[in-house]
Amino acid sequence: MSSATYDVLGIGNAIVDIMARTEDDFLVAHGMAKGGMALIDEARAAAIYGAMGPAMEISGGSAANTIAGLANFGARAAFVGKVRDDHLGRAFRHDIRAVGVAFDTPAAGNGAATACSYILVTPDGERTMNTYLGAAQSLAPDDIDPAAVAAARFTYLEGYLWDPPRAKEAFLKASAIAHGAGREVALTLSDSFCVDRYRDEFLSLMRTGAVDLVFANEAELHALYGTSDFDGALTQLQKDVRLAVVTRSEKGCIVAAPGGLTPVPAHPIKELVDTTGAGDLFAAGFLFGLVNGAGHAAAAQLGALAAAEVIQHIGARPQTSLKALAEAEGLLPA
Amino acid sequence: MSSATYDVLGIGNAIVDIMARTEDDFLVAHGMAKGGMALIDEARAAAIYGAMGPAMEISGGSAANTIAGLANFGARAAFVGKVRDDHLGRAFRHDIRAVGVAFDTPAAGNGAATACSYILVTPDGERTMNTYLGAAQSLAPDDIDPAAVAAARFTYLEGYLWDPPRAKEAFLKASAIAHGAGREVALTLSDSFCVDRYRDEFLSLMRTGAVDLVFANEAELHALYGTSDFDGALTQLQKDVRLAVVTRSEKGCIVAAPGGLTPVPAHPIKELVDTTGAGDLFAAGFLFGLVNGAGHAAAAQLGALAAAEVIQHIGARPQTSLKALAEAEGLLPA
Repeated sequence: MSSATYDVLGIGNAIVDIMARTEDDFLVAHGMAKGGMALIDEARAAAIYGAMGPAMEISGGSAANTIAGLANFGARAAFVGKVRDDHLGRAFRHDIRAVGVAFDTPAAGNGAATACSYILVTPDGERTMNTYLGAAQSLAPDDIDPAAVAAARFTYLEGYLWDPPRAKEAFLKASAIAHGAGREVALTLSDSFCVDRYRDEFLSLMRTGAVDLVFANEAELHALYGTSDFDGALTQLQKDVRLAVVTRSEKGCIVAAPGGLTPVPAHPIKELVDTTGAGDLFAAGFLFGLVNGAGHAAAAQLGALAAAEVIQHIGARPQTSLKALAEAEGLLPA
Repeated sequence: MSSATYDVLGIGNAIVDIMARTEDDFLVAHGMAKGGMALIDEARAAAIYGAMGPAMEISGGSAANTIAGLANFGARAAFVGKVRDDHLGRAFRHDIRAVGVAFDTPAAGNGAATACSYILVTPDGERTMNTYLGAAQSLAPDDIDPAAVAAARFTYLEGYLWDPPRAKEAFLKASAIAHGAGREVALTLSDSFCVDRYRDEFLSLMRTGAVDLVFANEAELHALYGTSDFDGALTQLQKDVRLAVVTRSEKGCIVAAPGGLTPVPAHPIKELVDTTGAGDLFAAGFLFGLVNGAGHAAAAQLGALAAAEVIQHIGARPQTSLKALAEAEGLLPA
């Protein structure tokens, strides 16, 4: 196995977040499931935007946030995702490249606009996402550069890729290339509603070894096994995948390996502002730890640190140096 | 004089801010005068954007921020400014209308893109602005609706309007209409470099009574009178305009009326994040006080409260209810 060019290559929906604070009433009035991600069409997007408060536009996308976080930590990172050659597409490209990520997927020259997610943040800090997939729908296997995937120690994939029609083919192509090159493949389950849509396929990916590492939160874990029995689901997860991390918000996380379970507490915060990107940044910190030889507990601490940074401001990308934060906390791998 | 439809009508450059955190080195390397507003062309905009870090896009514009702040307080507010019918123009229109501001200036259907300001926020919270005026350049007297101006208790104008070629004509037209209808006219001096460019014209506006109320910060006051003698400049300002407020960051502000000077302390903050919009929101609170019958000191306290909210997060528009904040602090006029 040759030495890696990238620590992590991520594949996901390239999305710009259009974020506004709102009251819970707004979610009820617009029939939104609080805390979830709903796919919307153009008409629904226009209706939501027309009704929502003043917004700010910040690059997002689940795997893209993770990759941006990795680069912010100092990792060598690349991203694959589809934008249109429009204003939001240029903003997405600027923002991910500006943090040092290699992002070379060509923009679509026609068709739907760059994906955006209308994210409503309630006073409790919870985010509710309404995603118009637009150009992200057109991600296809041809967008996967085999050499780039083979040169990445980890390929990181989001469960949301099961939504666009051909992105799952791209996902499976990347997974096969990565494993063929002796690399590892990580998957985030993304969202409990997403797990509901693709439960059997996600379980199959895990059980056939197409993925080596799974990130899930509590709701996604419960959805995956159709149970509210956390401990039972965790035991099953341990059997189904080589390594998994289950995040539990302020209760911290549990790393589930064949050898046992390692609980790690959440990183303390001053004020919860916006949970958008919490799971994405946890994954960034954990992967940064792994590629730098940290043990599971230390990697989870880095994940908790990165998640704590991102939930204390609006937006799903870090606004400060995670590397400097980790150094200040004595968490930087030697 | 008929009853007013609007408490305040603002006229200014309609701008979307493209904001990024940066180190001081970046400003030096790119020849930027820290804390100032520089006008840039498309080529310079592309160079700055290409070099700057990950950004977020948030509606801005000095007078527009003030008007958005007024609406957030619960005032009846309107704005006049020119955007293009492009992505940023639609975002600007959405954001200002979403907070309840009447904004009906038609978008330009061709020509330059919607104005944007590349704003670099250094670790000390100071902002340095690089503004591409674009479509804002085309604001013209025809964009001023005489009935709307005549129906506003205050017309609020930004000194930055002296930069676009015909906006100053729009400014003077609005001032004349307002005074003809027995209304008042307020001006913010905007920026010390802007004052350097238009010192004589600003002094003439004040001395001829074209403006009744002036907002300035310390640097703008010094620039206006070409002196570093604060007390001397303040005395001169008292003579040149009926009412003025000089803001002094953490030192609070001084209301200068013919009858005397009223110093008011700054509102306490937890953490300075980004000074963008501090002066704009001070003006919003002060004007909200005036139109609701508050005295000068009480109006200045409302200004200080609004400024304190906006400097504790990224972006120049309030992210919480100023009305609720004022109520909680017992500052809401009866």
